[in-house]
Amino acid sequence: MKAALKSQRIETPSWAYGNSGTRFKVFAQEGVPRDAFEKIEDAAQVHARTGVAPSVALHIPWDRVDDYAELRAYAGELGIELGAINPNVFQEDDYRLGSVCNPDPAVRAKALAHLLECVEIMEETGSRTLSLWFADGLNYPGQDSIPARQDRLAEALVAVRDRLGPGRRMLLEYKFFEPAFYATDVPDWGTAYAHCVELGDGAQVLVDTGHHAPGTNIEFIVALLLSRGKLGGFHFNSRFYADDDLMAGAADPFQLFRITHEIVRAGALEDAGVAFMLDQCHNIEPKVPAMIRSVLNVQEATAKALLVDADALSRAQREGDVLTANAVLMDAYNTDVRPLLAEIRADMGLDPDPVAAYHRSGYGKRIAAERVGGAQAGWGA
Amino acid sequence: MKAALKSQRIETPSWAYGNSGTRFKVFAQEGVPRDAFEKIEDAAQVHARTGVAPSVALHIPWDRVDDYAELRAYAGELGIELGAINPNVFQEDDYRLGSVCNPDPAVRAKALAHLLECVEIMEETGSRTLSLWFADGLNYPGQDSIPARQDRLAEALVAVRDRLGPGRRMLLEYKFFEPAFYATDVPDWGTAYAHCVELGDGAQVLVDTGHHAPGTNIEFIVALLLSRGKLGGFHFNSRFYADDDLMAGAADPFQLFRITHEIVRAGALEDAGVAFMLDQCHNIEPKVPAMIRSVLNVQEATAKALLVDADALSRAQREGDVLTANAVLMDAYNTDVRPLLAEIRADMGLDPDPVAAYHRSGYGKRIAAERVGGAQAGWGA
Amino acid sequence: MKAALKSQRIETPSWAYGNSGTRFKVFAQEGVPRDAFEKIEDAAQVHARTGVAPSVALHIPWDRVDDYAELRAYAGELGIELGAINPNVFQEDDYRLGSVCNPDPAVRAKALAHLLECVEIMEETGSRTLSLWFADGLNYPGQDSIPARQDRLAEALVAVRDRLGPGRRMLLEYKFFEPAFYATDVPDWGTAYAHCVELGDGAQVLVDTGHHAPGTNIEFIVALLLSRGKLGGFHFNSRFYADDDLMAGAADPFQLFRITHEIVRAGALEDAGVAFMLDQCHNIEPKVPAMIRSVLNVQEATAKALLVDADALSRAQREGDVLTANAVLMDAYNTDVRPLLAEIRADMGLDPDPVAAYHRSGYGKRIAAERVGGAQAGWGA
Amino acid sequence: MKAALKSQRIETPSWAYGNSGTRFKVFAQEGVPRDAFEKIEDAAQVHARTGVAPSVALHIPWDRVDDYAELRAYAGELGIELGAINPNVFQEDDYRLGSVCNPDPAVRAKALAHLLECVEIMEETGSRTLSLWFADGLNYPGQDSIPARQDRLAEALVAVRDRLGPGRRMLLEYKFFEPAFYATDVPDWGTAYAHCVELGDGAQVLVDTGHHAPGTNIEFIVALLLSRGKLGGFHFNSRFYADDDLMAGAADPFQLFRITHEIVRAGALEDAGVAFMLDQCHNIEPKVPAMIRSVLNVQEATAKALLVDADALSRAQREGDVLTANAVLMDAYNTDVRPLLAEIRADMGLDPDPVAAYHRSGYGKRIAAERVGGAQAGWGA
Repeated sequence: MKAALKSQRIETPSWAYGNSGTRFKVFAQEGVPRDAFEKIEDAAQVHARTGVAPSVALHIPWDRVDDYAELRAYAGELGIELGAINPNVFQEDDYRLGSVCNPDPAVRAKALAHLLECVEIMEETGSRTLSLWFADGLNYPGQDSIPARQDRLAEALVAVRDRLGPGRRMLLEYKFFEPAFYATDVPDWGTAYAHCVELGDGAQVLVDTGHHAPGTNIEFIVALLLSRGKLGGFHFNSRFYADDDLMAGAADPFQLFRITHEIVRAGALEDAGVAFMLDQCHNIEPKVPAMIRSVLNVQEATAKALLVDADALSRAQREGDVLTANAVLMDAYNTDVRPLLAEIRADMGLDPDPVAAYHRSGYGKRIAAERVGGAQAGWGA
Repeated sequence: MKAALKSQRIETPSWAYGNSGTRFKVFAQEGVPRDAFEKIEDAAQVHARTGVAPSVALHIPWDRVDDYAELRAYAGELGIELGAINPNVFQEDDYRLGSVCNPDPAVRAKALAHLLECVEIMEETGSRTLSLWFADGLNYPGQDSIPARQDRLAEALVAVRDRLGPGRRMLLEYKFFEPAFYATDVPDWGTAYAHCVELGDGAQVLVDTGHHAPGTNIEFIVALLLSRGKLGGFHFNSRFYADDDLMAGAADPFQLFRITHEIVRAGALEDAGVAFMLDQCHNIEPKVPAMIRSVLNVQEATAKALLVDADALSRAQREGDVLTANAVLMDAYNTDVRPLLAEIRADMGLDPDPVAAYHRSGYGKRIAAERVGGAQAGWGA
Repeated sequence: MKAALKSQRIETPSWAYGNSGTRFKVFAQEGVPRDAFEKIEDAAQVHARTGVAPSVALHIPWDRVDDYAELRAYAGELGIELGAINPNVFQEDDYRLGSVCNPDPAVRAKALAHLLECVEIMEETGSRTLSLWFADGLNYPGQDSIPARQDRLAEALVAVRDRLGPGRRMLLEYKFFEPAFYATDVPDWGTAYAHCVELGDGAQVLVDTGHHAPGTNIEFIVALLLSRGKLGGFHFNSRFYADDDLMAGAADPFQLFRITHEIVRAGALEDAGVAFMLDQCHNIEPKVPAMIRSVLNVQEATAKALLVDADALSRAQREGDVLTANAVLMDAYNTDVRPLLAEIRADMGLDPDPVAAYHRSGYGKRIAAERVGGAQAGWGA
Repeated sequence: MKAALKSQRIETPSWAYGNSGTRFKVFAQEGVPRDAFEKIEDAAQVHARTGVAPSVALHIPWDRVDDYAELRAYAGELGIELGAINPNVFQEDDYRLGSVCNPDPAVRAKALAHLLECVEIMEETGSRTLSLWFADGLNYPGQDSIPARQDRLAEALVAVRDRLGPGRRMLLEYKFFEPAFYATDVPDWGTAYAHCVELGDGAQVLVDTGHHAPGTNIEFIVALLLSRGKLGGFHFNSRFYADDDLMAGAADPFQLFRITHEIVRAGALEDAGVAFMLDQCHNIEPKVPAMIRSVLNVQEATAKALLVDADALSRAQREGDVLTANAVLMDAYNTDVRPLLAEIRADMGLDPDPVAAYHRSGYGKRIAAERVGGAQAGWGA
């Protein structure tokens, strides 16, 4: 169990170190990075404190640089790797009615070109994963043909798949709604799954925990995708209402535990095939410590899942003993795993309390003092 | 257009003529059928008034009879056919923890035997469709293994598929929740679709309009399943909250129209492949006229969908003209199609106002007077 | 803190010891009580194991007896008291269109008479609380006048209030939906609150944790009602979807903690004014141990709420330190309070592990053996 | 009926003529106003086409001008009035943790000062209504004290009320969530109502149709507030998921009809006391014609509500005839009122088809050509 926890890898997203907000307001914060290099410094800080966040996902064009090899080398110096590449086909005026699903073939071609550019960037960054999210959809009934848009989507996905290098894969993310308000072109896991089955190996589904209808049982989806070999990874975050992008585990820690339980049970924790990524927005809280907290929350949920007495659980399930089976699961959940994780950190040569260590380090004050002037990174919406 | 409307076939469910209710109370009504024969009389009455409800779905064991040939002949005399067969594997104490997904192999075997019995009944009734809904699921986290239950489900579905006669098919229905409260074994279209793809031809998805998470875009699912040849049919009803089973079109008539629009657009209206079935509970309102109203509501939505100016719509969609495309759709929806449908009924030799004709016929009073004594049909919960 | 936990009082509901189910099926269980006396034995068993469940709520007519003094004495012998009286105005055919909101004055009069009968029963049972829940509502738009029904409701509530004895109070429960599907006459806390304000002292709102729209922040409602002196009590249970009536704390233990946090913070834990009642349905699990588990879950949530470092929390809140304030709360939630509660039980002369003690006691086997024949108690739907 | 429709007044919001979007992207459009004067031109255009949109709501500071008398005079020249004043206390960095509920007294004072400034602006613009929406809330459990924030809110509301001039009133808007993700300080009508009752006359609730939990019955809230004299007005718009701010009536036209039915039934249509205001975002569609369509949608819903046969409805409701009562309502809804409204427009000297007339007028092309350069109006998020 300790070994499993020490070798866990949770990828943090570069964009969560920049400013973010709602459509009503982006509150600027002190010390926010101005470029991809500074984002990588923040990501490295999270890894330095937690020991389990050794890579950072990039978003293109927000993290575009002239020389990706230099960026990669810089990350390497700071002890982390460059992770998934996330293309952006939703922030140019051309994409008002969609990107790869747009009724205009010229816009579709432009969007596809950007996706293929990202495939090339993967070779330079050493990324193995292309993480695809499409903001495509409709705001009004009748606005466009739902099935025609599916066909256009399939066409683009095939084109991307055919260009992926060896050992590379694409993950297709789904989202219930937002920014489209009537129909989203990949609204649920079923749609993403249907496309991934048709695309064959190299295409898998990405589960963002905030992208579901109210009441959706996410661990069921996780279990089903795992059983079909089609779970590519996660975007962890938490939500009370819509896609709130709060710190992972903050809104419903029990749900996060149930998800990690399905992963552990399927033996998918160690398997490099499932990418554990965070995708969050720290709109009002300081970003680096919020990211540390999120990593810890995923780690704690995982530790609890590893504590589940699998034999006792299976026995109770086989016997149809509802209360005992539930109690076995809850016993693990109710255990305080923080002492164990502190011990593991000590084993790894880390401070047992990453948040306190971060504050003692003065990192937050240093970046606030140093990162003055220039344009703070943000979404550019 | 008139031809399409005259040839539409909407199947009514035998169980909706019996008593139903909530877990709090089943309110008995006058004139409710006591057996399958009387249910068929009521179904025939709905067809006699509307002209577009020429078949009735059966539920086994609620509609079990000694001689299905006799039942079929009786239906034929009254001008209707026997439709889909609906097995029941949720109302015996053995099914407390599920039927085909139950951890106990003996219960699974019993459930499968009932499914296969229903396959045999299909041969006697002349039914072409086996309509499968499983109440299987979990009430508590940990209660059973989610992936193990999927495997058991797949095993049962294969066994049923292998026994289906030529020209027969099975429809797999999904449901978001209820009666299971934590996890349902077929909770969404994606799960039903995954199984149907694995089962191959002869297995298709059944969409019950009341079985979705809040906010789900049902017409998207319809369009996607149609594009993959996996839409087997509908259980139409309407809901404000959960699976309310109100009259079709009563809660959100615009949604029903958007669904029929996708059907018409895909050319699936005439195609015998998509079964238009109702599945409702008339808990507080008289059942036969409520069923007539439901049939009319589906018919009106269909008529509006047929009114959509397809060329104007495609043009506006191609040009990215959001407001015009939406306006073309809304123009059809806002049209009052009742005069047209009255005309069609007159053409078919029917009274133009089915509800008024029903009331004038005295049928309701006759069954209230005649169906006295005996046990009223109901769900037997 | 230990004192607060030892003096906590959680009331269990008589009906949860009887059979219950969904509209699809009520699964009978072994050992289920046949009458109110046997229900009280089960409730006493829960108190004997947990030490914090010293009263049982009654439901009339399900618990109707000829001599309430005898019932009260029997409870006393077993160490518990009779608690809230819950009238039933939803299970007679007359109530098809509502009870106190029914358009028919005769039905309204009948419903009111039952409510007043329950007020009289309170005097015999020594109950101080009348717990009102109305299933009244509409299934279809237009079915009845929404404001006229509000007026009828207000009239009945005034009549009940005027008859309450000294030291007695009425609690008005709200429910989002079910059994009504289009409009419920008391659908939310705002409606209950408006009536209670108009009724004055002696009328308070009852919060059933399962009776809210998806995503509703229940602790906000609790805090607001507490600040206005209008929180009368709780019906604790848990849910993933609708009114699932699962064991309290089973679906979202963090939510239960947040609720108890608001109670503790408002100093309302010891205050007799807020009634902590359970309202659950154990459809598939054995009822007595499920009730024990539910009591423990409420107790654990309360213990965690008592652990919150109020000073540290206030300081961080005052300073606008989002992450620290959240961390203070989470620190309490993440603590394993089971050892502390075991200690408290030992102090109280109880077995530290109530569930294990229950199983060792043989109570479950005894009632299964003894309670054979007769009609098992249930909802009678 | 014609008179009622001719005298209907629907207020359009100045901000809906500017650019808007989601947190992902604001798509700029051609011809968007650069200042309050140009917004008023657009609002006047909507009134010129529809005849029922004679006023425009202002948002401060987005519509701040040096001389409000001049703005008012300009509006008068164009045939419209200045309507409700909407303060903005959510778009400065100081408001990161709230405005009038902020833990920092200095921020609260600043927010209050802005509210009082808006009260003064009302005197200059001749506005009778102050429309209050607070973005205040919490993103994380524990972040701040829920009841303390309620107290701070109440304090600010009292201060504003005390400063309102004679004949002026304040409307308090509630919102389920966004931009706060864990707890919103005025999340539902009950909270707004509780404050308005405490504030007394001059404070009423504002219902924004997009600000509710999934499944909420809005017409129930409308009926209840009307019965208590506490419905101040509407922000009409429509939504499928969250606060989508789509054109009124676009997502669920039947719901809009049910709302107008309650208004008509309560005799509140003509009553100047209920303000019919739109609040929308035209993110992807051209703004002026989208606003015309929205006005028409509200007008059509109102016309249908006026068509309801009130006597037949009351009779069926009294008799408990569920199907007839529903049918009476649906008969009005299913009627095509567009010919009637075209006639009314002709009576009023308007083009019977406002959208077509708008396109023929060349207004859209003119503003696209003229409004070049300068900064387009937007939300400034």
